[in-house]
Amino acid sequence: MGQGTKWMHYLKQLSSANVPAALIEKGQNRVIDASLTLIRERAKLKGELLRSLGGVKASTSLLGVPLGHNSSFLQGPAFAPPRIREAIWCGSTNSTTEEGKELNDPRVLTDVGDVPIQEIRDCGIDDDRLMNIISDSVKLVMEEDPLRPLVLGGDHSISFPVVRAVSEKLGGPVDILHLDAHPDIYDAFEGNKYSHASSFARIMEGGYARRLLQVGIRSINREGREQGKRFGVEQYEMRTFSRDRHILENLKLGEGVKGVYVSVDVDCLDPAFAPGVSHIEPGGLSFRDVLNILHNLQADIVAADVVEFNPQRDTVDGMTAMVAAKLVRELTAKISR
Amino acid sequence: MGQGTKWMHYLKQLSSANVPAALIEKGQNRVIDASLTLIRERAKLKGELLRSLGGVKASTSLLGVPLGHNSSFLQGPAFAPPRIREAIWCGSTNSTTEEGKELNDPRVLTDVGDVPIQEIRDCGIDDDRLMNIISDSVKLVMEEDPLRPLVLGGDHSISFPVVRAVSEKLGGPVDILHLDAHPDIYDAFEGNKYSHASSFARIMEGGYARRLLQVGIRSINREGREQGKRFGVEQYEMRTFSRDRHILENLKLGEGVKGVYVSVDVDCLDPAFAPGVSHIEPGGLSFRDVLNILHNLQADIVAADVVEFNPQRDTVDGMTAMVAAKLVRELTAKISR
Amino acid sequence: MGQGTKWMHYLKQLSSANVPAALIEKGQNRVIDASLTLIRERAKLKGELLRSLGGVKASTSLLGVPLGHNSSFLQGPAFAPPRIREAIWCGSTNSTTEEGKELNDPRVLTDVGDVPIQEIRDCGIDDDRLMNIISDSVKLVMEEDPLRPLVLGGDHSISFPVVRAVSEKLGGPVDILHLDAHPDIYDAFEGNKYSHASSFARIMEGGYARRLLQVGIRSINREGREQGKRFGVEQYEMRTFSRDRHILENLKLGEGVKGVYVSVDVDCLDPAFAPGVSHIEPGGLSFRDVLNILHNLQADIVAADVVEFNPQRDTVDGMTAMVAAKLVRELTAKISR
Amino acid sequence: MGQGTKWMHYLKQLSSANVPAALIEKGQNRVIDASLTLIRERAKLKGELLRSLGGVKASTSLLGVPLGHNSSFLQGPAFAPPRIREAIWCGSTNSTTEEGKELNDPRVLTDVGDVPIQEIRDCGIDDDRLMNIISDSVKLVMEEDPLRPLVLGGDHSISFPVVRAVSEKLGGPVDILHLDAHPDIYDAFEGNKYSHASSFARIMEGGYARRLLQVGIRSINREGREQGKRFGVEQYEMRTFSRDRHILENLKLGEGVKGVYVSVDVDCLDPAFAPGVSHIEPGGLSFRDVLNILHNLQADIVAADVVEFNPQRDTVDGMTAMVAAKLVRELTAKISR
Amino acid sequence: MGQGTKWMHYLKQLSSANVPAALIEKGQNRVIDASLTLIRERAKLKGELLRSLGGVKASTSLLGVPLGHNSSFLQGPAFAPPRIREAIWCGSTNSTTEEGKELNDPRVLTDVGDVPIQEIRDCGIDDDRLMNIISDSVKLVMEEDPLRPLVLGGDHSISFPVVRAVSEKLGGPVDILHLDAHPDIYDAFEGNKYSHASSFARIMEGGYARRLLQVGIRSINREGREQGKRFGVEQYEMRTFSRDRHILENLKLGEGVKGVYVSVDVDCLDPAFAPGVSHIEPGGLSFRDVLNILHNLQADIVAADVVEFNPQRDTVDGMTAMVAAKLVRELTAKISR
Amino acid sequence: MGQGTKWMHYLKQLSSANVPAALIEKGQNRVIDASLTLIRERAKLKGELLRSLGGVKASTSLLGVPLGHNSSFLQGPAFAPPRIREAIWCGSTNSTTEEGKELNDPRVLTDVGDVPIQEIRDCGIDDDRLMNIISDSVKLVMEEDPLRPLVLGGDHSISFPVVRAVSEKLGGPVDILHLDAHPDIYDAFEGNKYSHASSFARIMEGGYARRLLQVGIRSINREGREQGKRFGVEQYEMRTFSRDRHILENLKLGEGVKGVYVSVDVDCLDPAFAPGVSHIEPGGLSFRDVLNILHNLQADIVAADVVEFNPQRDTVDGMTAMVAAKLVRELTAKISR
Repeated sequence: MGQGTKWMHYLKQLSSANVPAALIEKGQNRVIDASLTLIRERAKLKGELLRSLGGVKASTSLLGVPLGHNSSFLQGPAFAPPRIREAIWCGSTNSTTEEGKELNDPRVLTDVGDVPIQEIRDCGIDDDRLMNIISDSVKLVMEEDPLRPLVLGGDHSISFPVVRAVSEKLGGPVDILHLDAHPDIYDAFEGNKYSHASSFARIMEGGYARRLLQVGIRSINREGREQGKRFGVEQYEMRTFSRDRHILENLKLGEGVKGVYVSVDVDCLDPAFAPGVSHIEPGGLSFRDVLNILHNLQADIVAADVVEFNPQRDTVDGMTAMVAAKLVRELTAKISR
Repeated sequence: MGQGTKWMHYLKQLSSANVPAALIEKGQNRVIDASLTLIRERAKLKGELLRSLGGVKASTSLLGVPLGHNSSFLQGPAFAPPRIREAIWCGSTNSTTEEGKELNDPRVLTDVGDVPIQEIRDCGIDDDRLMNIISDSVKLVMEEDPLRPLVLGGDHSISFPVVRAVSEKLGGPVDILHLDAHPDIYDAFEGNKYSHASSFARIMEGGYARRLLQVGIRSINREGREQGKRFGVEQYEMRTFSRDRHILENLKLGEGVKGVYVSVDVDCLDPAFAPGVSHIEPGGLSFRDVLNILHNLQADIVAADVVEFNPQRDTVDGMTAMVAAKLVRELTAKISR
Repeated sequence: MGQGTKWMHYLKQLSSANVPAALIEKGQNRVIDASLTLIRERAKLKGELLRSLGGVKASTSLLGVPLGHNSSFLQGPAFAPPRIREAIWCGSTNSTTEEGKELNDPRVLTDVGDVPIQEIRDCGIDDDRLMNIISDSVKLVMEEDPLRPLVLGGDHSISFPVVRAVSEKLGGPVDILHLDAHPDIYDAFEGNKYSHASSFARIMEGGYARRLLQVGIRSINREGREQGKRFGVEQYEMRTFSRDRHILENLKLGEGVKGVYVSVDVDCLDPAFAPGVSHIEPGGLSFRDVLNILHNLQADIVAADVVEFNPQRDTVDGMTAMVAAKLVRELTAKISR
Repeated sequence: MGQGTKWMHYLKQLSSANVPAALIEKGQNRVIDASLTLIRERAKLKGELLRSLGGVKASTSLLGVPLGHNSSFLQGPAFAPPRIREAIWCGSTNSTTEEGKELNDPRVLTDVGDVPIQEIRDCGIDDDRLMNIISDSVKLVMEEDPLRPLVLGGDHSISFPVVRAVSEKLGGPVDILHLDAHPDIYDAFEGNKYSHASSFARIMEGGYARRLLQVGIRSINREGREQGKRFGVEQYEMRTFSRDRHILENLKLGEGVKGVYVSVDVDCLDPAFAPGVSHIEPGGLSFRDVLNILHNLQADIVAADVVEFNPQRDTVDGMTAMVAAKLVRELTAKISR
Repeated sequence: MGQGTKWMHYLKQLSSANVPAALIEKGQNRVIDASLTLIRERAKLKGELLRSLGGVKASTSLLGVPLGHNSSFLQGPAFAPPRIREAIWCGSTNSTTEEGKELNDPRVLTDVGDVPIQEIRDCGIDDDRLMNIISDSVKLVMEEDPLRPLVLGGDHSISFPVVRAVSEKLGGPVDILHLDAHPDIYDAFEGNKYSHASSFARIMEGGYARRLLQVGIRSINREGREQGKRFGVEQYEMRTFSRDRHILENLKLGEGVKGVYVSVDVDCLDPAFAPGVSHIEPGGLSFRDVLNILHNLQADIVAADVVEFNPQRDTVDGMTAMVAAKLVRELTAKISR
Repeated sequence: MGQGTKWMHYLKQLSSANVPAALIEKGQNRVIDASLTLIRERAKLKGELLRSLGGVKASTSLLGVPLGHNSSFLQGPAFAPPRIREAIWCGSTNSTTEEGKELNDPRVLTDVGDVPIQEIRDCGIDDDRLMNIISDSVKLVMEEDPLRPLVLGGDHSISFPVVRAVSEKLGGPVDILHLDAHPDIYDAFEGNKYSHASSFARIMEGGYARRLLQVGIRSINREGREQGKRFGVEQYEMRTFSRDRHILENLKLGEGVKGVYVSVDVDCLDPAFAPGVSHIEPGGLSFRDVLNILHNLQADIVAADVVEFNPQRDTVDGMTAMVAAKLVRELTAKISR
C-alpha cells in the first residue's frame, strides 16, 4: 500500500468520524498555495540573478517531479530526481559538455528544485489537481525569463502536464521529439487516463503538439500503431533504425510552431546502456545513437524532460544515474544560449 | 562537487559580475519564508484533523530532513526519507506494530513531509541558517497539538537542531536515549562544528539535555571518552553489553525534565542487521536487542529521530530500509497514545 | 501476467471458438494421471531400494513443490526447490550433519523430485484440483515405507495440502511445530482461501492438527491473535523469546497423536541470517536459535517442510540457499533413523 | 558433488549391499516410461486444442530441458527454463512481438513443460539414455501437428538430441543457423562426447544437418577451425562481422532440405547485452544485430532452441532473462503461422 | 587453468625443447633469494625504527600471504591482503581500537608487505619450496625484535608454515586458539597434504603445538572428530556454545610453553556477520562473541593470522573486509605492548 | 586515510622522537635495491628461457603496477593486476587469441610479476622516487631480449614512467596510440603533477613521443583541447567517431621513430561494455570497435599498457575483468612474434 492509498484510508475514517469536508478542503488548498509559492520564489530568485547578469537568451533550469505512482509496473522513478542531480555534479567527470558548454556557469544551468509530489498526495489531493499543480509549476518557471524548464521525472505520465503548460504558456502547439521504447499512446492503461502509457494520447488530444516524432520504438501493439495513425504520429521503430538513421541524425523541427519539446525516456536506450529502468526492452539505441540525434537536431528547444530512470533497478555503482545525468547535461547544452 | 559547493561558484561569478548582494539576500529570505509556510500548512492540516477527531494525547508525525552533507565519509543519508516511507507502507508486511498499534489510523501516524534541504542549499543558504530552518520546522510541527515529531534523517548532524527546538519549545532540557556505534561528541570534526560526529557536543553545550545515555558504542577514542566525562554522559559500550543488558532493558527516563528524546542511529545495529550504513562497525546490537530496549523503556517520548540510513549502501532488496522502517514503526507505537 | 493467468486467456478464446469443454477436461485428467504416475514410480524406486537394503525405520525423501502463486507479495519461492538441492550437495561443505548423520547414505536421504506445478497450472487446472494433486503426491511417498516426505516449497500455502495428506494417511491429527515470522492463520487473505497467509487456518479447521506451536512470530495483528485463540494455538512471539527460550529448547511433542510435523518458514530467521525471503521482518531468530530448538526437540517427526525461500531475493553467492539447505540437512538427520 | 554424482555413491553402496541390478533397472524403466507419458499427454492436450481451433499451419510450443551438467565451467543453465517463462509473461512488457504476433493466442504459443532432467538423473539414468529421452520428448511434441518445438535450455549439449530428433522425425537433414560465441564443435571436451562444446560435432557426424552457419564466433582455436573445415561449416567470425553483415541480414536457408533449425546460444551477444552467461566473451553481437538476422531470415523454421542462459550470473533485475525471453518471443513469431 | 598450472605447460614445452634443467633451477633460486631479501629489508627497516624509538616489548607487524590455490572450493582468499589493509585505514572509522590502542602509532602497528606468492609460483616453484619460503619470511620478521607477525591470508593452508616457523624460531611448541567453522585437520584433502583442510594435522604431527583449542566448529565429520581425538584437540562445537561460553570467555593459555598463537578463520563467524567467505556454514559465532573471547583471553600472543576472507564473495560495500580488518585491529591491540 | 598517508604520521612521530633521518634513508635505499633485484631476477629467468628456446623476435611479458593513489576519484585500480591475470587464465574461455596466437606458449606470453608499490610507499618513499622505480622496472624487463613489457595498471599515472623508460631505453621518441574517454593531459590536476589526468602532459613535455593519437575522447574541457593543440596531439572525439572510423581502422604508425606504444584506458569503452571503471562516461566505443582498431593497426609495438580497470566497481561475475583480460590477450598477440 503506497502513501496515496493510505490517505484513502484516512478519508474513510475521517468521514465516518464526521470530520467536516470543508475543513479538509480548506487545508488542502492552503498546502497547494504554499507549494506553488515555494516554486515561484525559487524560480524568481534564479530568474532575477540571470537577468541581473544579462546577455542570456535561454537558460536551462531543472525542475524535479518525483512522481512514480502512474507507472504500471514499478514506482521507482519517484526516487530519481535527487540521484540525477548527484550524478550531474559527481566528482568522476568534469563540468563541460561534449560541445564545450560550462555547466558551472549559472547562465547555462540553474535549479528550482522539486515539486513536493509525495507531500501533496499525502494531503489527499487527487491526480486531477496534482496534474494541474505540475502544469502550474512549469508555468512559474517559464514566467521567469530567460529560464527554460528541463524536467526531471518521475515516470512518463508527467510529460502530459508539462507539455500542456508549455503549449498554453507559449500560446500554441509545439513539435515533439520523443525518444522511447514504447509509444505511450494508449487511450488509457488499466483504466488510468493519466497512466505513463497514455501521456502522448492526452497531449495529442489536447492539441498541444503539431508533429510528434517517436524514435526507439520496439514494444508496440496494434492499439499503439492505430493510435499513432489516428494522431498522425511519425513512429520510427528500431526494426528499421539502420535505414532511418540518416533522417534521424539530420532532423530539423519547430518551424511554424512555438518551439520544440524533447522528451527522453531513458528506456529508449538498450538496457545494456541503461539497466536502471522499469521496463527492460532489449534491442534499443546506443548512448552514442541518442547523442548523435540530439547533437544534430536543428531546433529551438523550449523545454524538455528526462524520465523513467528507476534508481531501484540501477547497478550498484549507479551507471544509469550517470547516463540520465549526461542526457540532462547534453540537453542543457542544447537549450541554453 | 556537490550542489552546495556549486553555489559557491555561483556567488563568486555573481559578485565579480556586480550582482547586488541585497538582491540575493532578499530572494533567499523569500525562499526561506515559503519553505516554512509549506511545513506550517502541512502540519496545520494534520493537526486540525486530529483535533477534529478528538481523544488523542500524543500522535506521531513524520518530518523528513534529507541532509547528508555534514557526513565525514558518505552523503547517502540525504536520500533516506522517501525510502523509509516506502518501506513503512511496503506490501510485504502488515500495518500493525509488534504490540498492536494500528499504523493506518491517522491518530497514530501522520506525515508532514520533508524540509526541502537541497533546494535551500542550492539557493546559497549557509549551514547556520539551515540549522535554524530545521529547528523552526520542528517547532511548527510541535505547535500543532497533539503532533509529536519523529524525524527521518539524514545524517546525525540533524539531531542538534531538532533537540534544540524540542527543548526550546518545551522550555527546558530533556533526557536523551541515544543508540549509536559512535558517541558523536567531538568538539568539531575536520573543522566542522555541525559535523554528524559533533551533534551531541552541541546539544550538551546548549543545555538542551539533562541525562544523555549512549548505547551500542564501539568506536570511540580518547576524545570521545573525555568529552563524555566532561558532559556527564552515561556511555554504555558494546564491550560490556552482556553485563549491562539488564539495566538497559529496564530503563526509566524523563522524570523531572520536560520529557524524553530518542535518537536512533541505524549503525547502532551490527552491520549484519543493517548493512546500509556509511560507517560499517562490526560488533553491534541485534535488531531484537534494540527492540527489547525500546519496548521496555518507561518514558514520555516527546520527539525522536531515526538517522544515518544510507540507501546507496543498502542491499538490492532494501533490507536496511525495512529495518529503518520498523524502527520508525515501533517508535511510533511508543510515542502515540 | 503469470502463466496460470495466461491459461484463462486460452479458455476464453477457446470457449468463444467453440472448443468442447469435454475435450479439455479429458486432456487435463490424462495430464493429472500421468503426473501422479511419475511421482509414484519415482517413490516406488526409492522405496524398493531401501526395503531391499533393510534395517531402516524412517528415511527422509525430498519432494519439491515449486508453487509460488499463492503468495501475496512475491512469487519467487516457486524457483526454490532446485536451488535448495544444489546447495545441499554444494562442494563448499561436507555431507555430514552436525550430529553425525551421513547424507550420502540413501538410507538417510533420497529424493522423489518435484510435483510439476507450473505444467499442471498451464493446463488450466485450478487450485482446488492442484491442492488435491499435492496431497496425493505426499500420500504416494508415504505409501512407500520407510519413506517420510520432507517437502521443499514453494510458498507456505503448500503446508495445508501436505499436512492434510499426512493426517489422512496416518488416520488422525499430528502436533505441529511451526517456525515463522507470521502466524499464517488469516481466515482468507485478499479473498484467497489458499493464500500462504491462511494455510494454518485451513489445517486447524480440518482437524489435521492437535497442538500447533508457532515460534518466531513478530508480524501479527488482531485477526492473527484472535484466530490463534479460536484454534487454541500456542503462539510464542519474539517479543518474549528471551523469556521463552528455555521452554522452546526443551520441547517434547507428539504424545497421544500420530506424530509430529515440523514446518519451517525461512523467514522465522532474522533477515540478517536469511535475506532471501519475500517478507523481510527484522527481529527474528538466529540460525543457531533454530538449530537449538530442532536439535533438542523430542519427537517422532513423520513429515516436514522448508518453505518461503525466495531465490530472487538471495545474495549473489546464495547465502540463503545454503541456509535453507542446512535446515533441510538437519531436519533430515532428525527424521531418519 | 552434484545430484547425478551422488547417485553413483548410491549405486556403489547398493551393489556392495547386494541389491539386485534387475530391481534397479526395472524401476528406472518405469520412471522413464512415466516421464515420457507425461510429456505426451501435455503435448496431446495442446495439440488437440489447436486442431480443434483449426486454421493453424505451424504453432510454437515450448519444451524446457533443464540440463546443465554437460557444461565445462558452470552448471547454472539448468535453472533457466522457469526463469525464461517468467520473463516471457513479465508484466513489464506487452504480449505482442515486434512484427505484430500476439503471444496470448494459443495458436501462436503453447507450452508442454519441462523434461524432468534432474529427477531422471537422480534415478541413476546415464547420459546415453538421457539423450534418448530428450530426443523422444521432442518427437512427442512434433507428433502433435501443428506443434513445433522451441526448446529452452539448459546448456548447449541439448542441441544434439534435439536436432537428431527433428531430423529423424522429418526424415532427412535440416539447415542450421547457429548463433554463438563458440563453434561447439570439439570432437570431445575433457573426454565428454556429450559436452556442450561438442554438440555440433555430434550433429554433423550424424548427418542431421546439411548446411551449418555459425555466426558470432569469437572464441575459436585450431581444432575449432579444422573441425569446421572437416564438416564444411560456414563460420562467420566477429572479426569480419562488419564486412559480413550484409550477407547475414539477407539469409535464405532450407531449400532442398526438410526445413531450418535455429540454435541461439545467448552468449552470441556481447556480455554487455547478456551478462547472464557462463562464458563471458567480449566483442559479440548487439541484440539488434541478432534481431536483424532473425527478422530477415527467409526460412521455414521447423524447430529451434535458446540455450546457455545462466540465471546464477544474471543481474539482480534479471536483464538477461528478459533478453532470453525476447529471443524466444521473436523466434515464436518467426515459427508460428 | 590457474597460473601455477600454466607453468607446468611451460615446463613440458621447455623440456621437450631441451632447455637445460640447471638453467631453470638456477634462475628459480635467484628469484627465491631476491624474494627473501626484500622481506628481510622491509622487516629490518621497521625493526630499526622501533628499536630507535625504544620502549616497546612487542609490536605487531603485518605480513601478507596472498595464497589461495590450496583451497578446495574457491581461490579468492589470494586477493585478500590488500583489501584488508585498505579496510584497516578506511576513512569510515577512526584509528583507535575498542580498548584504546592507537593504530597510527608505529610502535603498535607496522607492515612488512606481502610474500610474492603468485610470482614465485609463476617461476615454477612447487609447494614444498613455497611453504619453506613462507616459513622463512615469518622468521625474518621475528628476527627483528620487537616485531611480531600478524599474517594476513590467504587460505588456511598458510597456518602450517607460519606456526612451524614460530615454533622453530622460539624453540618449542605454542598453544593455539583456533576459531573456525571447520577443524581443518584432515590427514589430506583430495590428495593434497598442504590443503587448507589439513593444516592443523600438519601442525600437530610436527609437534609445533601443545594445546589446540578449536572454537566455532559446526562442519565436522567422523574423520574430523577422530583426528581431533588422536591429536588431543579440544574441540568446542557450536552445538554446545551456549553451555561453553563461560569457559571460552575466560581462557588462559600459554603457560609452560613458548607463547600463544591465535588463528582466526573468518568463517568462524556466522555468514550473516561475514558473508565474504568461500564456505558458507550457517550457525556460527557473532562478531561480538569473537571479540568477547579475544578481549578476555589471558595470553602472551607471539603471532597470529586472519585467514579465509574471500573478497570475491564479499558484499559490494565490502562488509567482510571491514570485519576482517577489525579482527586484525583488535588482535593488534592484544599483541602489541 | 590510505597507507601512504599513514607513513606521514610515522615520520612526524619519528622525527619528534629523534630517530636519525640517515637511518630511515639507508633502510629505504636497501628496500628499493631489493625490490629492483627481484624484478631483475624474474625478468632474467624468463629471458634466459626464451633465448634458450630461440626463434623469438618479440615476446610479451606482463608487468603489474598496482598503483591507485594518483587517481582523482577512486583508488580501486590498485587492485587490478591480480584480477586481470586470473581472468586471462579463467576456465571459461580457451587460450587462443582471435587471430590464432597460443597464449600457453611461453614464447608468446610470460609474466614478471608486480612492482611492490604498496610496500614501497609504506616505507615512506615519495612519488618522485616511486616513478623512477617504475621506470627502472620497465627497463629491467626490456634489458632481457626478446621480452617486451605489457604493463597492467593501476591508474593512468603509470603511463608516464613507463613511456619514459621505453623511450630512454630505445634512445628516442615513440608514436603512441592512446584509447581513452579523457585526454589525461592537464598540466596538473588538483596540484598533482603525477595525477592520472596529467600523464600525457608529462610524456609530451619530456619529448618521449612524436605522434600522440587519442581515440574515444568524450570528456574534455577547454584546457584539454588547448593542451592538445600545444603538444600537437591528434584528438579523435567520439562525437565524430562514425566519420573517423575508416581512418582509425586503418592506422599505420611508428615509421621513423623507435616503435609504437599502445595505452588502453579501459574507460575508452562505453560503460555498458566495461562498467568496472572509476569514471563512468557514457557514449564510448564498443569492444568490437576497439578490437577493429587494434587488429588493423600496422605497427611494431614495443610496449603497451592496460590501465584504469577498477575491480571495486566491477559486476559480481567480473565482466570487466574479462574485458581487461581480453584486451591484454589481443595486445599480446599483436606484440609477440
